[in-house]
Amino acid sequence: MKLYITTTSGNAWKVRLLLSMLKQKFETVVLDTEKREHKTPEFLQLNPRGQVPVLEDGKQVFWDSTACLVYLARKYGGEQWLPTDAVGMAEVQQWLALSNNELHYGLQWARGVKIGIRSIGDYNEYATYGRNGLTVLEGRLKANEWLACGRPTIADLACYCYTSVSPEGGLPHDTFPGVAAWVKRVEALPGWVKRV
Amino acid sequence: MKLYITTTSGNAWKVRLLLSMLKQKFETVVLDTEKREHKTPEFLQLNPRGQVPVLEDGKQVFWDSTACLVYLARKYGGEQWLPTDAVGMAEVQQWLALSNNELHYGLQWARGVKIGIRSIGDYNEYATYGRNGLTVLEGRLKANEWLACGRPTIADLACYCYTSVSPEGGLPHDTFPGVAAWVKRVEALPGWVKRV
Repeated sequence: MKLYITTTSGNAWKVRLLLSMLKQKFETVVLDTEKREHKTPEFLQLNPRGQVPVLEDGKQVFWDSTACLVYLARKYGGEQWLPTDAVGMAEVQQWLALSNNELHYGLQWARGVKIGIRSIGDYNEYATYGRNGLTVLEGRLKANEWLACGRPTIADLACYCYTSVSPEGGLPHDTFPGVAAWVKRVEALPGWVKRV
Repeated sequence: MKLYITTTSGNAWKVRLLLSMLKQKFETVVLDTEKREHKTPEFLQLNPRGQVPVLEDGKQVFWDSTACLVYLARKYGGEQWLPTDAVGMAEVQQWLALSNNELHYGLQWARGVKIGIRSIGDYNEYATYGRNGLTVLEGRLKANEWLACGRPTIADLACYCYTSVSPEGGLPHDTFPGVAAWVKRVEALPGWVKRV
């Protein structure tokens, strides 16, 4: 397998985490965004959105971190990381959606403005939306170890990456003790890897 | 089953479409957002994000449109609307992600600013992002009838709703003929229902 990443992409980190936890061998292709390598005609053939991660597995190519997580979980993880019953799968999907919404457009965009990797947009708008996301996570994690199904799933990996670095965006976890404990719990999972 | 909606929610429309196409009976609860009925303590118990749709099926409660679609497809739709093999499921997930990203934060927020239901944010930023989404859809639909798996799936329903109304947001389909034809194809599916 081949995984296209950039050195700063939290979305690519989510997929690296699952590949490592599933003990899958893969080749990493690091794109240089300053050279616009994610916008070349060749890369846009792989992903018309011009973003990482992209996962190649033989002839199969998938873009979007949640789609990569779903593919790997189903192909190499049995029922453990993504169950196929209606209730379990929908539970996981709720948190994939939170990761695509409040955590990305809130936590990560607030961090982007704060650390200077995002040049447009309003910090307070993003921070408010991100804080909503932390509140929803806390509501679940104050009384549960994991987000879905009572065990680690791709829901945790999808939500973990941008949550773990949200303090860099001015959104610390001091008032979210359930979230803080869960971040440490994810980092103690066998196979956890740090960001690039 | 009970589905919580508002009269303006495109995300709730996605779930109404699938319930109708699956011929499932359900009760509709219409929340009045002017009275802040989506932010009452009782409703926040059902959905801590304070948004519609929410689906209740017996004791099960799901928030987020994509999670509701996944639940209904798995519980009442067999393999038809959401296959469980790794490739098919990941194909569907890619488009669920597009619906959560470019189509929601691009197409729908541009429309929100244009028609006055969104009071903050920059129209041009949203419109550019939404146009990216239409371009990605067109890339697929210019040579394919459906977004994933060669047949109608929840990917189509998730992407259809905000795409079909994007002309109201100043993003018409004139230069996206594949998208325009696909919108008509979705509207010809048995069980299609109009927005509230």
